[in-house]
Amino acid sequence: MQHRIEQYFDRLWPINRSLTGDGNRETLRILSEIVPFEIKEIPSGTTCFDWNVPPEWNAREAWIKNSKGEKLVDFSINNLHLLGYSEPFQGKLTFQDLDGHLYTLPEQPELIPYLTSYYKRRWGFCLSHQQYLSLDKAETYEVFIDATLDESGSMTVAEAVIKGASDREILFSTYFCHPSLASNELSGPLVTAFVYEALSKRTDLRYTYRFAFQRETIGAIYYLSEKGTHLKEKLDAGFIVTCIGDDGAFTYKKSRIGNALVDKVCQAVLEQTEEDYNLVEFSPRGSDERQYCSPGFNLPMGSLMRTMYGKYPEYHTSADNKEFVSFGAMEVAVDKFLTIIDVLEKNRCYTNLYPFCEPQLGKRGLYPTLGSQKQTAAFVEAMMWVLNLSDGEHDLIDISLESNIPLSFLMQVVDVLLEKGVLV
Amino acid sequence: MQHRIEQYFDRLWPINRSLTGDGNRETLRILSEIVPFEIKEIPSGTTCFDWNVPPEWNAREAWIKNSKGEKLVDFSINNLHLLGYSEPFQGKLTFQDLDGHLYTLPEQPELIPYLTSYYKRRWGFCLSHQQYLSLDKAETYEVFIDATLDESGSMTVAEAVIKGASDREILFSTYFCHPSLASNELSGPLVTAFVYEALSKRTDLRYTYRFAFQRETIGAIYYLSEKGTHLKEKLDAGFIVTCIGDDGAFTYKKSRIGNALVDKVCQAVLEQTEEDYNLVEFSPRGSDERQYCSPGFNLPMGSLMRTMYGKYPEYHTSADNKEFVSFGAMEVAVDKFLTIIDVLEKNRCYTNLYPFCEPQLGKRGLYPTLGSQKQTAAFVEAMMWVLNLSDGEHDLIDISLESNIPLSFLMQVVDVLLEKGVLV
Amino acid sequence: MQHRIEQYFDRLWPINRSLTGDGNRETLRILSEIVPFEIKEIPSGTTCFDWNVPPEWNAREAWIKNSKGEKLVDFSINNLHLLGYSEPFQGKLTFQDLDGHLYTLPEQPELIPYLTSYYKRRWGFCLSHQQYLSLDKAETYEVFIDATLDESGSMTVAEAVIKGASDREILFSTYFCHPSLASNELSGPLVTAFVYEALSKRTDLRYTYRFAFQRETIGAIYYLSEKGTHLKEKLDAGFIVTCIGDDGAFTYKKSRIGNALVDKVCQAVLEQTEEDYNLVEFSPRGSDERQYCSPGFNLPMGSLMRTMYGKYPEYHTSADNKEFVSFGAMEVAVDKFLTIIDVLEKNRCYTNLYPFCEPQLGKRGLYPTLGSQKQTAAFVEAMMWVLNLSDGEHDLIDISLESNIPLSFLMQVVDVLLEKGVLV
Repeated sequence: MQHRIEQYFDRLWPINRSLTGDGNRETLRILSEIVPFEIKEIPSGTTCFDWNVPPEWNAREAWIKNSKGEKLVDFSINNLHLLGYSEPFQGKLTFQDLDGHLYTLPEQPELIPYLTSYYKRRWGFCLSHQQYLSLDKAETYEVFIDATLDESGSMTVAEAVIKGASDREILFSTYFCHPSLASNELSGPLVTAFVYEALSKRTDLRYTYRFAFQRETIGAIYYLSEKGTHLKEKLDAGFIVTCIGDDGAFTYKKSRIGNALVDKVCQAVLEQTEEDYNLVEFSPRGSDERQYCSPGFNLPMGSLMRTMYGKYPEYHTSADNKEFVSFGAMEVAVDKFLTIIDVLEKNRCYTNLYPFCEPQLGKRGLYPTLGSQKQTAAFVEAMMWVLNLSDGEHDLIDISLESNIPLSFLMQVVDVLLEKGVLV
Repeated sequence: MQHRIEQYFDRLWPINRSLTGDGNRETLRILSEIVPFEIKEIPSGTTCFDWNVPPEWNAREAWIKNSKGEKLVDFSINNLHLLGYSEPFQGKLTFQDLDGHLYTLPEQPELIPYLTSYYKRRWGFCLSHQQYLSLDKAETYEVFIDATLDESGSMTVAEAVIKGASDREILFSTYFCHPSLASNELSGPLVTAFVYEALSKRTDLRYTYRFAFQRETIGAIYYLSEKGTHLKEKLDAGFIVTCIGDDGAFTYKKSRIGNALVDKVCQAVLEQTEEDYNLVEFSPRGSDERQYCSPGFNLPMGSLMRTMYGKYPEYHTSADNKEFVSFGAMEVAVDKFLTIIDVLEKNRCYTNLYPFCEPQLGKRGLYPTLGSQKQTAAFVEAMMWVLNLSDGEHDLIDISLESNIPLSFLMQVVDVLLEKGVLV
Repeated sequence: MQHRIEQYFDRLWPINRSLTGDGNRETLRILSEIVPFEIKEIPSGTTCFDWNVPPEWNAREAWIKNSKGEKLVDFSINNLHLLGYSEPFQGKLTFQDLDGHLYTLPEQPELIPYLTSYYKRRWGFCLSHQQYLSLDKAETYEVFIDATLDESGSMTVAEAVIKGASDREILFSTYFCHPSLASNELSGPLVTAFVYEALSKRTDLRYTYRFAFQRETIGAIYYLSEKGTHLKEKLDAGFIVTCIGDDGAFTYKKSRIGNALVDKVCQAVLEQTEEDYNLVEFSPRGSDERQYCSPGFNLPMGSLMRTMYGKYPEYHTSADNKEFVSFGAMEVAVDKFLTIIDVLEKNRCYTNLYPFCEPQLGKRGLYPTLGSQKQTAAFVEAMMWVLNLSDGEHDLIDISLESNIPLSFLMQVVDVLLEKGVLV
């Protein structure tokens, strides 16, 4: 799978993405080879709660030339060079006039920063601080930005649904609006698309799975303005998928609820399958948890990441690139989501049909007939735990936590007990 | 008392005990010198929930001879030599044919294992691995088992009750079905019998005490099939008494409820009277807690033990014998149960009759008349705690936990406050 | 402020104070320069719950002379020399007869102890153990105590109220009955009086503030007999003010409730403003928490102290004097109470008026317009926390605890959000 992920990565990487624009449409066209999206265009200006969909931005060309006509900064080389949502501009400027339009990272002088100005009209270029220092202060520069901000445009949103037996739902929400960023951008849609691909082949799903490919903030806000009430009613667990591309340890950031099903399952699976992982309490910072976990919705959504936003120096710079990410690690991340889904599909409060004393497991072939052996099999122990706690109040994750028996093993035991008719 | 315990131990030790059989009847006949049991015979085949009472098993003689007629393995020397519930057999076998009927412990080559086959018809012998290795593989062996499995027999159960002023109950449940095992068998009935003896002399009991002398598993299941509904309604605390014969530190295994009265009192008494003890969370493994704490009953019953089953190498082997146990320690265990009972008898939510500000203790002779002395007596401090927390929501154990004042002292203070009429 | 505190200290120090008497009236007369008290005389014999107001005690002169007429022990030199509530006496005694009336501290031989005998008629003198040992055992001593115990007298109580916008109340309860003790006496009324002075100048108070200047125990009991029902209904938080005069670390002793508003605010403020402080669980010992936190009232009242009663060797001796206390530390204590009051005044469960997703802070000038900057301002983070948790269930103290953002900063953020109309 990792080679296919890489191929998609290479095709998507050069495209300029933002809140809106043709690059987003092209991105969805490519991803729709994996996910049969329902795509909608939301007109610029559309009100979503306290917000409005911004004008559609398309940038075709943008550069700074010196007086010799040499292109010093060129959008066609790296999308990050152009400040996101830059307005069009053409003119000649002294260094002093240009200076206020240049953005750099003095602490990371070799890297281009990622910056946007969605809600205030500006133009600007991002460049390495090294390059900035090398600019001739006596020069006159020619600047050209061929971009449009179209109030009659639209934001392109995409969703796909896999129907399961139940109308209870699990949501994957990811976003693409950061051009030329690898872990904090492309990894999210890529991992989510391959989770979709794996689940779409299954015919036994209990849950209905919803996949939303958004833009950060305004995309999630639009999505909630449309589906928020539905999700409040139907959602059992959800994942914000971002920063999942590097090979650092997994990080799980809890939902605002803190002990929701999604929190329990992610902690249990990471604890039982990973040597090392990070657990982060909810805070109203970061990504789209700010919307999904706003107090009016308070949805049971957590963030399963690798190295978290803000925790790696490459974050929001040109160094969050193909070198930084690992396609093998992305494949493992897809599998981790599938493991979590396996647990969610199997997890519930089962009922022991023989709650008064133990059912006699021996006559069902489930108990060693030679009593009092000093070592009792792990299987017997797991059966005992499942039966004892299947009282309608403990789900399988609770039983795993109380017994310290891995979910992977409990799930096998449950299958046997279901088949033998002692559990429903 | 410890000498009387030892005398009973010596009389009971040679008797073969199992789920059923005449050895059990003989055991109860001897113990009835201490406890005036009501004894019942439960017919083989009787249904109890998912189980049936097994046929009655009696074994009179069992041995393996070599071709010279020498008895190599002999039930009359150690009851453990015969696999529990062995069916009758007589015949000559090669070593190869005999081999599948021999049970040993290769990791503890000097010890005879304890094994049973209650619910599958087999015959077999248990012997030390050393002896097993010394058997001549070229020999022909003569095997004789004079045993009966009687479908028209019965299981002999016994109960005794000491009525107190209230119909709220405390249950002691112990079992004897392990022949020739000292701590994980005889210690339980012996300690329980001597607790009975001490309580039967008291005329001031508030609780009604019930003593059940069962067999492990099927005995408890039968008992619950008869008394389970009653116990669910009336039981305030119960004890499974087993593994209480050695001189290891006390172990308390919590009830499934986890914070029931029995859990609170056992933890508080052990904490306040023992330098060292073990606290074990509930698990649906071990002994009759599997039945009493099954989800349908979920009774407030814990296990007060010395070294717990499975935690000592002698467990379920011929080394769990008279040398392993300590009659002095059993006497201390009896006293520990009586201390716990003293607390249970005294414990309740008392009511401070002067809840608004303090009652004036000085005019009742309970307070030093010279105010502001730098050292205040422990007695005054204990009175203050009892009065402050006797609000109908804290029992004496809660007050002890919050104040760090031992229950033994609080109980004296309560008597004074009751007598002075400030507490009821 | 600290010089004014010291001036009042010096004027109040020589006055003899007790449960009753003219010294108390004089003390209130002086303090009424700061606090416009409502003063009441409660007749001796008045019943308050299980107690009665004692007779009024006034002592004018008291000494022990040797046969040469030299005054060895003299009440006019230190009030502590006379056992509190001593009955009048005049006579000549041998050392042996005098001995039973002398009280010393053998473990602190240089210090005079503080002792009283309110509820048993006695007379006596307190002196240093050194002086006691120097007394000539062959001497005849002349003793004179000019004191009166008047059953027709009264106890003088004082209260002042600052009305705020709401009828919800905050109570400061302090006492003066220990003569010639500095931290465990005068510091309480002094700090409380200066808290009053500061609050009385404010016109924006939400809470109504009540200041009770009591006597320990019987004063609080009387006060509760009159105001207890009212306080149960109206009191949101209260402080017992004692032992607040030295420069030791602050100590907060929790209310009986344990997690009341007063407990939350004191812990949060101390945690956020002090490097070092002590937190003490409730116990029904100490001072007037024994009455305010008796089970019938269980008021939300804690004790903010410096070094706690019983925790310093000078406690209840002549060494708890002007040298022991610090007027600078008392000023800091006044400020600490005012900081706590600032939080209480501002604290409530605010409501985010935009609970569905985030309000768009950018269009209100509250968010950086250049998105994706790596460092986000602390102000933005604090706004996000306040908005996310202002769901009607978290007050400002809860938000501070969850976010680890100091209350002082959150309070500024709240003001901005209120002004911008996103919070009410």
